[in-house]
Amino acid sequence: MWILRVDMKDRSYRLEDVPLQYRQLAGRGLTSSIIADEVPPLAHPLGPNNKIVFSPGLVTGTAAPTSARLSAGAKSPLTGGIKESNGGSPFARDLAVMRIRALVVEGHPKDAKSFWGIRLTWDATKGKPKVEFFDATEYCGKSLYDVVPALYKRFGDSISIAGCGVAGELGYGNAGVMYTDMAKRPSRYSGRGGLGSVLGSKRLKFIVVDDKGAPGVEIANRALFEEGRKKMTEALQTHAITKPKGALNSFGTAVLINILNEAGGLPTRNFASGRFEGAAKIAGEAIFEGTKQRLGKELYNHACSPGCIIQCSNTWFDAKGTEVTSCVEYESDWALGANCGIDNLDDIAEMIHLCNGYGLDTIETGTTLAVAKQAGVLPFGDSKGAIRLVHEIGAASPLGRILGGGTEFTGRAFGQTHVPTVKGQSMPAYEPRAVKGIGVTYATTPMGADHTAGYTICPEILSVGGKADPLSPEGKAALSRAFQATTAFIDSTGHCLFIAFAILDIPSGYEGMIQECNGVLGTQWTAEDVLRIGGEILSKELAFNQAAGFTKAHDRLPEFMKTEPLPPHGQVFDVPDLALDAVHAKQ
Amino acid sequence: MWILRVDMKDRSYRLEDVPLQYRQLAGRGLTSSIIADEVPPLAHPLGPNNKIVFSPGLVTGTAAPTSARLSAGAKSPLTGGIKESNGGSPFARDLAVMRIRALVVEGHPKDAKSFWGIRLTWDATKGKPKVEFFDATEYCGKSLYDVVPALYKRFGDSISIAGCGVAGELGYGNAGVMYTDMAKRPSRYSGRGGLGSVLGSKRLKFIVVDDKGAPGVEIANRALFEEGRKKMTEALQTHAITKPKGALNSFGTAVLINILNEAGGLPTRNFASGRFEGAAKIAGEAIFEGTKQRLGKELYNHACSPGCIIQCSNTWFDAKGTEVTSCVEYESDWALGANCGIDNLDDIAEMIHLCNGYGLDTIETGTTLAVAKQAGVLPFGDSKGAIRLVHEIGAASPLGRILGGGTEFTGRAFGQTHVPTVKGQSMPAYEPRAVKGIGVTYATTPMGADHTAGYTICPEILSVGGKADPLSPEGKAALSRAFQATTAFIDSTGHCLFIAFAILDIPSGYEGMIQECNGVLGTQWTAEDVLRIGGEILSKELAFNQAAGFTKAHDRLPEFMKTEPLPPHGQVFDVPDLALDAVHAKQ
Repeated sequence: MWILRVDMKDRSYRLEDVPLQYRQLAGRGLTSSIIADEVPPLAHPLGPNNKIVFSPGLVTGTAAPTSARLSAGAKSPLTGGIKESNGGSPFARDLAVMRIRALVVEGHPKDAKSFWGIRLTWDATKGKPKVEFFDATEYCGKSLYDVVPALYKRFGDSISIAGCGVAGELGYGNAGVMYTDMAKRPSRYSGRGGLGSVLGSKRLKFIVVDDKGAPGVEIANRALFEEGRKKMTEALQTHAITKPKGALNSFGTAVLINILNEAGGLPTRNFASGRFEGAAKIAGEAIFEGTKQRLGKELYNHACSPGCIIQCSNTWFDAKGTEVTSCVEYESDWALGANCGIDNLDDIAEMIHLCNGYGLDTIETGTTLAVAKQAGVLPFGDSKGAIRLVHEIGAASPLGRILGGGTEFTGRAFGQTHVPTVKGQSMPAYEPRAVKGIGVTYATTPMGADHTAGYTICPEILSVGGKADPLSPEGKAALSRAFQATTAFIDSTGHCLFIAFAILDIPSGYEGMIQECNGVLGTQWTAEDVLRIGGEILSKELAFNQAAGFTKAHDRLPEFMKTEPLPPHGQVFDVPDLALDAVHAKQ
Repeated sequence: MWILRVDMKDRSYRLEDVPLQYRQLAGRGLTSSIIADEVPPLAHPLGPNNKIVFSPGLVTGTAAPTSARLSAGAKSPLTGGIKESNGGSPFARDLAVMRIRALVVEGHPKDAKSFWGIRLTWDATKGKPKVEFFDATEYCGKSLYDVVPALYKRFGDSISIAGCGVAGELGYGNAGVMYTDMAKRPSRYSGRGGLGSVLGSKRLKFIVVDDKGAPGVEIANRALFEEGRKKMTEALQTHAITKPKGALNSFGTAVLINILNEAGGLPTRNFASGRFEGAAKIAGEAIFEGTKQRLGKELYNHACSPGCIIQCSNTWFDAKGTEVTSCVEYESDWALGANCGIDNLDDIAEMIHLCNGYGLDTIETGTTLAVAKQAGVLPFGDSKGAIRLVHEIGAASPLGRILGGGTEFTGRAFGQTHVPTVKGQSMPAYEPRAVKGIGVTYATTPMGADHTAGYTICPEILSVGGKADPLSPEGKAALSRAFQATTAFIDSTGHCLFIAFAILDIPSGYEGMIQECNGVLGTQWTAEDVLRIGGEILSKELAFNQAAGFTKAHDRLPEFMKTEPLPPHGQVFDVPDLALDAVHAKQ
């Protein structure tokens, strides 16, 4: 197993053996460790001393189901803190089977005029990966949908790609890292935290990986791994949410639209209400029905990355049956839909497509448009105007640069106070005044407002892994803490977080996850180690943020959420500050 | 003595006796105390829970020379921390002689469509001040040079005015608080920290004061006061910098251009060099000579505020002898000149005039334009283009909103790393790599980068109050600490900070300052009390900032100043972090 370091200063690279202290780390555990160990906390996120690290998970590249995820990590241009942003892609598997535990991109080129790409192949003669640099300037300033096909043409169909869009070239706070999906679309993202701009600042436009001849992942105890894999597979294939033709496979993540709307927790019109009158028109069920109508047949969802058996990626087609975009995720659907007062799936899908093409995080884009709408730039509900604004972002007009800076940035540009962010990152699709536990996660995760950092929605809304009253502030600190630690571990395994639905309800699935990891590493981890390891990852992240200038004052929701009651429940966010401070207090 | 509270929520007001614990506080000491005591540290700066406080100094309104200064204080929209921004104006005297120690503006109006003004007069019948509200919407969206004359016409010539320009109406991070000068110009500012936007967020456009009939300032020990006043007067009239036809009276503050340029500490082209080849063309001497040429006679400078005997405000005239603007301060001249690579005084003066008209801080505007120039928006040296950009800010175009957000904001919009700010506020006209002590002040003052918070330039460059090697990092923490504490006291007296030139060199002047204060208050302060009181003010400010989320990590200069050597001396900023942390450590 190697750490591959690419230095953009002189376009060189080197392979290092994974050092002892990193041997049992991968995914988020490894990206956060490398960033914490190597990046000065006060480094400028777009300066030469920041680094961006890609690391597939512990079981990525194996036959473990739904495990082709990777972590991208850096000091975030959006939050100013440490960042891990997770994505699923063949790119994750391809790094893993070449036995690259981490790809670390460092330095700045002196020649700031060009952008570069790197091509990573398996050198069979030497039995190790090889890196070539190529001039990628010709691919700049264009939609990723226009240039990614050219890369496939140039380098062959067996490649996978990571890179940044124009948003990253421009240094926007809202620039994601793009990965190609199974069908060569530039549609999978480590979307959050502006990490695409770290790539852009290093003038690295694309990372192309061809895994031909790669040896695959070493497995220390194959029998144990197989036992775990089977338990995990069975759990995923059994649970109502994750099973074939289950909730996710049928309706995609957008199945949550109706559920959250019903719960009064679907943020609507820039977090002015928890209920959207147009919810049913943009819900997962509406996508399924709309697709059936337009294609003349039922279409179940597909996998975003190799080996996924949940397969939750949907596709939206226009009236002629031509694909508009894949995938209409819940978060994208909500951000560009309900939160902008928009109930038109065709327009929402077009905006998602534009975001993918320009290299933007759909969540941050939608919440930004909503703040701009609140500021009077555009009326809520104006979907054609919203499409125009996304184009402005891609075109780098002055207004586009404001919006490209993200939600908090746009709020400042227009002197707004109603801005739903924590640590500079916008909240995703769960209203913390209606679902208090997720508010604790937003406030206290080192990542900035992020649902995936501690998805208390499971017990609060979905009755998964127990039940908790979403409107009650009681016990939510402990709940969030447990979810945050478990999540930091899952983000290190390479499994998609959606395995949580199954393994929280089915104990053998949880065992299976641990057995898979023990099988690969030859360790003897138990359930206690999951929380210990997750906690250690969080500690490293929190220490980095503290050195970067974060305090308890940053572990707070925006002022307006503590004073303005949210319809329909009329609740404010009332988890006490002391409870928030207790989340990461030494136990 | 009263505290006058104006609540914009319901447009009401009330007079309170100054409570016991505030009786010996005024100016910065009082604004910072009220903000620290009453504003929640996590309040949104533009939200209803922020307040803006105006307080004239302890001896303002008396016959003490050069003492018509006041402090404006609030939680800053620019820095997110506590802010005191000092200005000189008849407005300061007028509040003082009405015995208003502090004017506190609170709350938000429900009707967000209108802007309002308040008119403050002396009610002789009741023997106290009176407030009337008037609709000021008609004065919005226009240059202050167009609307301030209308206020004089409406309310009479004996008024003085404070208010905000369009920058404040728009909620810009870079919006100053305007005060009228002795000749009714809207040209004096509490420029820094975006406090104009706090006024704007409260929909308070203007505060008009008419002091007719006001009783004047109470003086507890008139003989002692007189003794102090005489000493102060003599010091100011003797010192080479402050005396009649001395450096400031002849050349204005812009006398510093040549001095700093010679020292290699004049930031040039966005802090790329410490020396500007066009310095002589924009220096105070050039202003004096240019004025002489255009008017056909020598013109010495005038006072910005009543009772000033330094009289350092210059005036710039066009080729026909018509006034372009007053005043061309060193900071404005540098920011819009050298720092933008511009050596044309006519264009610099026009930009200063535009900033005054739009309600912008000239420092923050110039440093913002320089960052925009670095980002390629405009070439360095293009003065006509720079004028156009200032107009964009006033016109609230999208580009104008970016630039109106200030230097750090503009840096983010364009993905720049070479951004000379601390705590979100841009550095003024002294390069910290060439003058290390002022860098310590920039880094550690609670105000964000601010020369006036601890003007170590005195010993480092001007040989005033001793001598210190500007290039040496040694002893600069202690130097800055002493200056910061003394300054917090001077900012509370109502004296202009420029008295420091005289009283640091002439001990009887320093005694005079203390005797003036003791004369007014009936106290028995000594020189030790000056440092004690200054230190107490700093402690309150630092505690507020800590609760607002500031840590040692925020007491740092930007990364590039530690790594990029500055011509001509080839120095980086090398004051150790431990020395910075020692500045405000408990002694």
